[in-house]
Amino acid sequence: MADTHRVVIIGGGFGGLSAAKRLKHAPVDVTLIDRCNYHLFQPLLYQVATGALSPANIAAPLRNVLKNQRNTKVLLAEATRIDAEGRRVILSDGEIPYDTLIVATGSSHQYFGHDEWEKFAPGLKTVEDATDMRRRILLAFETAEREPDAAKCAAWMTFVVVGGGPTGVELAGTLGEIAHDTLKHDFRKINPSQARILLVEATDRVLPPFPPPLSEAARKMLTRLGVTVRTGAMVMNIEDGAVTIREGERTETIPTRTILWAAGVLASPLGRMLAQQAGATLDKVGRVVVEPDLTVPGHSEIFVVGDLANFSHQTGKPLPGVAPPAIQAGRYVAETIERRISGKQIAPFHYFDHGNLATIGRAAAVADLGWLRLCGFPAWVIWLFIHLLNIVEFQNRLLVLVQWAWLYFTRDRSARLITGKNPLPLDL
Amino acid sequence: MADTHRVVIIGGGFGGLSAAKRLKHAPVDVTLIDRCNYHLFQPLLYQVATGALSPANIAAPLRNVLKNQRNTKVLLAEATRIDAEGRRVILSDGEIPYDTLIVATGSSHQYFGHDEWEKFAPGLKTVEDATDMRRRILLAFETAEREPDAAKCAAWMTFVVVGGGPTGVELAGTLGEIAHDTLKHDFRKINPSQARILLVEATDRVLPPFPPPLSEAARKMLTRLGVTVRTGAMVMNIEDGAVTIREGERTETIPTRTILWAAGVLASPLGRMLAQQAGATLDKVGRVVVEPDLTVPGHSEIFVVGDLANFSHQTGKPLPGVAPPAIQAGRYVAETIERRISGKQIAPFHYFDHGNLATIGRAAAVADLGWLRLCGFPAWVIWLFIHLLNIVEFQNRLLVLVQWAWLYFTRDRSARLITGKNPLPLDL
Repeated sequence: MADTHRVVIIGGGFGGLSAAKRLKHAPVDVTLIDRCNYHLFQPLLYQVATGALSPANIAAPLRNVLKNQRNTKVLLAEATRIDAEGRRVILSDGEIPYDTLIVATGSSHQYFGHDEWEKFAPGLKTVEDATDMRRRILLAFETAEREPDAAKCAAWMTFVVVGGGPTGVELAGTLGEIAHDTLKHDFRKINPSQARILLVEATDRVLPPFPPPLSEAARKMLTRLGVTVRTGAMVMNIEDGAVTIREGERTETIPTRTILWAAGVLASPLGRMLAQQAGATLDKVGRVVVEPDLTVPGHSEIFVVGDLANFSHQTGKPLPGVAPPAIQAGRYVAETIERRISGKQIAPFHYFDHGNLATIGRAAAVADLGWLRLCGFPAWVIWLFIHLLNIVEFQNRLLVLVQWAWLYFTRDRSARLITGKNPLPLDL
Repeated sequence: MADTHRVVIIGGGFGGLSAAKRLKHAPVDVTLIDRCNYHLFQPLLYQVATGALSPANIAAPLRNVLKNQRNTKVLLAEATRIDAEGRRVILSDGEIPYDTLIVATGSSHQYFGHDEWEKFAPGLKTVEDATDMRRRILLAFETAEREPDAAKCAAWMTFVVVGGGPTGVELAGTLGEIAHDTLKHDFRKINPSQARILLVEATDRVLPPFPPPLSEAARKMLTRLGVTVRTGAMVMNIEDGAVTIREGERTETIPTRTILWAAGVLASPLGRMLAQQAGATLDKVGRVVVEPDLTVPGHSEIFVVGDLANFSHQTGKPLPGVAPPAIQAGRYVAETIERRISGKQIAPFHYFDHGNLATIGRAAAVADLGWLRLCGFPAWVIWLFIHLLNIVEFQNRLLVLVQWAWLYFTRDRSARLITGKNPLPLDL
């Protein structure tokens, strides 16, 4: 067994997990390394942040997913460095040698050089981010209910979402639903439906990757949900209790106690490691510029898949940082490894684009399938089925279905718990 | 409205919430104060700690439960003091006056004067306790998988549950199932079914409130699940990595990295407040000794219900600290308040004991219904239905049912996420 080909995969997201699964019958030893013990279905993370689903509903324990795959080990560990010369991954508590390495560590959010904004405007990438965001949103209403000062109360009732991409649109739309429907009868002093929800986007429209008519449809649906959409608005400053935006010449400071960040993306630090250790080139958000076969130039034994890769060979632009390209890339790399072992020829990676979906709220979504553009209810039904079918583990699919059906008919979100370190006394 | 009778309830557990709900049509203003924004179904908390259910499945947002009850306000706040003279509750950030006060703040765990044990042997009372316990249990197996030293690995594979009451029996039995069933195929180096699970109980049998034959049945079921039951064993010391127990003359130190505390109960600190401010008498675990009508002696306007009350008028012994007496007491107090307002006579509180249930594992439970004693599968079915029917909110009932059915047929627990502060590197 000593000379079995060793494949090490860093990251159990869509890219890493699909590569691991596709290697099930390959004559290799697979080690999947992740900091978390679960695969997270990130497209639905905003539903955890807004109290519709529980974290476990969108997370599948990696060991469970791979338990019947005898050539595969799961390692709960953090990869801190890649020694490309010595062909080993350095962990925070050990090291692990590889013959082939797949790096699939994705991305996190960035604040365009203003890291000090993070504590006032948290982003949404992990389960902990989601429960923290849920806590902030629910505590804002709780604090407003008890705040006697009208101006302070208004700041607690103002929610600013920064970034008009899919995550920002989903968060803002859902906040609109929470304020207008979910919490309608919950309070005695405040009226949650008077909450002010702002979506701030720097470009001239929301959902920039979509065709302009669908962006316009999304804007209308957001407005109907009570969201004020501010396009062409740059965030100039974020501080405790306020956000300052500039629209053209006009600068405005908005008092708010809840700012949610859905704007900048920064590739994982392992990209920089590949630049230092393997001579990889990074683009301006830190993604690794890969060859047509997804390898690092000069290192045919190192593959990069998912958000961390900049693959521009097909369209001249990097593939979007969403699940389908990551899944397809993971499978392609697994097949490439198998073909190499059996000495077969390998074609370059080709991404098959099935289209683009974004949801805004209840029965409201946009779908760009290339040959067909939809918005409203039909797009939402497509969104629903695609997400439901892609959730890993049958039990979670069932639980999500039950909760969505409940949410649809009652508009109630039962997972709205304030958890975490004791939040009392409220910061009035 | 200024002279409407003001009822303040501290605590949204079984006692406080049932009082609030029963006051729905009473001509009073109700304020329910809780530190959490949800009512927690504590009897199933151990299922969150062991990855079978998500926190939201056993929690119901208090505002949601009471949203259609227009005479009732919910206040997310912490009561720090009771000013019995001035008839007001002092909060960490304000105060609130009352005409009638219901104190229902329950209990937490105690370490019999050894508070230093807490960090090594956490207890189980809150959602945060449960997710922390889940993290410890899952990380123990993860760390064992990576630990090269055999003795250290054995300590990670040893789980000690202190206390053979219902919670301890449930935790130990479930740990047995996790080791033997859930994680069976998950690891490559360790064999989870070789985990050592000890249940340590100071008295001569587990489940002391049950008749001896049922205790014996529970012991057998635990043994079948791979749990070593040590009765007549006193915990002498708990330190980092070991627990010392004494059985008769023999003292033994057991190396273990996971100790779960299910032993001592200590009444909420508001009991001491009532002693200081209202002259109440406390028993040795800090419970308030109440009158036959559940009031504090000398203060007919202050009621104590649930775990915090010592009501011994009926049987000579305090009522057990479980849900049914708390629920019945809450309803009794609400009715008493209504009857007082309309000048009607009031009978003393009478607890109707429906029996005692404890579950040990899959298809294993004991039931003492007074007129009928059951163990094994029939007791488990009763346990199942009673718990399912008593969960607050219909959606949660449905979600719990789906997850229990899944667990029964597949023995898989999908909510086994390691969350919380980043646990890496593992403490090898």
